[in-house]
Amino acid sequence: MSDRIWTAGLTVIGDEILSGRTQDKNVAQLATWLNAQGIRLGEVRVVADRQEAIVEAVDTLRARYDYCFTTGGIGPTHDDITVDAIAAALGVPVVIHPEARAMLEAHYETRGGLTDMRLRMARVPEGASLIANRMSGAPGIHIGNIYVLAGVPHIAAGMLDALTGQLEGGLPLVARTIGCWVAESEIAELLATVERSREGVTIGSYPFFREGRVGANFVVRSTSQEDVDASIADLTAGLEGQGRTVVEGGI
Amino acid sequence: MSDRIWTAGLTVIGDEILSGRTQDKNVAQLATWLNAQGIRLGEVRVVADRQEAIVEAVDTLRARYDYCFTTGGIGPTHDDITVDAIAAALGVPVVIHPEARAMLEAHYETRGGLTDMRLRMARVPEGASLIANRMSGAPGIHIGNIYVLAGVPHIAAGMLDALTGQLEGGLPLVARTIGCWVAESEIAELLATVERSREGVTIGSYPFFREGRVGANFVVRSTSQEDVDASIADLTAGLEGQGRTVVEGGI
Repeated sequence: MSDRIWTAGLTVIGDEILSGRTQDKNVAQLATWLNAQGIRLGEVRVVADRQEAIVEAVDTLRARYDYCFTTGGIGPTHDDITVDAIAAALGVPVVIHPEARAMLEAHYETRGGLTDMRLRMARVPEGASLIANRMSGAPGIHIGNIYVLAGVPHIAAGMLDALTGQLEGGLPLVARTIGCWVAESEIAELLATVERSREGVTIGSYPFFREGRVGANFVVRSTSQEDVDASIADLTAGLEGQGRTVVEGGI
Repeated sequence: MSDRIWTAGLTVIGDEILSGRTQDKNVAQLATWLNAQGIRLGEVRVVADRQEAIVEAVDTLRARYDYCFTTGGIGPTHDDITVDAIAAALGVPVVIHPEARAMLEAHYETRGGLTDMRLRMARVPEGASLIANRMSGAPGIHIGNIYVLAGVPHIAAGMLDALTGQLEGGLPLVARTIGCWVAESEIAELLATVERSREGVTIGSYPFFREGRVGANFVVRSTSQEDVDASIADLTAGLEGQGRTVVEGGI
């Protein structure tokens, strides 16, 4: 634990996201997991299954953030080129990881055996270690500050479980939400004033239109519970001073 | 219509996506809409509500792609800084758009009037035109090859409706899907061979695990319906040659 803020970038690899065929779920999943580790997701890039696009994103994000995650493109098929791209970014060859081979052999022993194409899933950039994956035979990959996860969300979740508590982070962000049936435009000044009054506090405003009425939820975040609580108290006082009802936890 | 491939980049602006609080829906929505316009989504960046982050992403994507979209950060509150960031990227001042002011005045006439904070939603980079928004008073913004949309998905959808048919595009991508109860690792070679046999054809392989069995859907895409159909025929023949049943449309 330290006051330093730890950060991560994510590269989502996959034509299926860019084509609109698949709704990404890994951004929200990784962001939530990172929060619990005391690490903030600073940026996401979604790129196509093209080596130069993956290399550009990974190279930028691994230099810019403490941790660099990728999701997608580690299966056995021709469009799974993440490992080759990461190896190219790092300037190392691709090798078969003996432990990954053993895991796949065990997994496929009763499922038709380990074919050449399945063995592709044991390929790693030289020097990498594995991230256990209890959902399927194929492991994730860790090399330097890069963490290579599966694209299928529940498999990525299994890999994140294996990484839980393993990454150094800072103080986790604390968040508290209140909701109010108010147009955000009417209290924009109040929000700005309360946010400015405590360093490190951010207030997000999330308007909605429901049941024929406008409302908004306000999420106050900080690494300090005390500052979050004080900001929520100020916001609540400001809203109630206008005769409005505040709903703790949001609407 | 031309053979040239038209492309777009998207910058999603919002701390709420990076914090995991909100599941983004605009990537899939925009991608699907772009497909229908004959434009391919080439890359997405998700950035925080920070001016330098927005400027970097927009500057890169507007140079790299034919069209540059943004979603989010155009509301009335302190964290809505998209307009300022786009103006900074283009090196132009922010001005009040008279037509946007008139639209907001009409919208808020029966809703408490146009306050200073609400008037923020009429701010545009100098030289911009408006994108109609039938869902709420606040319009989207068009300047150069940049299209600034709302973050709330149904409001963004309304703005896309207003843009439908307005952007030059190429031949739309045609896609056809088949599904099969097969481990993708067993037919990876077949997929690669069929993909290689016709230029401009891409085959995506999307494995799943359901009802205790592994399967996969295969999506064949090209601007040529003929090539898509021929590739589907080859894939089907390859799978049926292994005694497998192919499900048209996917499983």
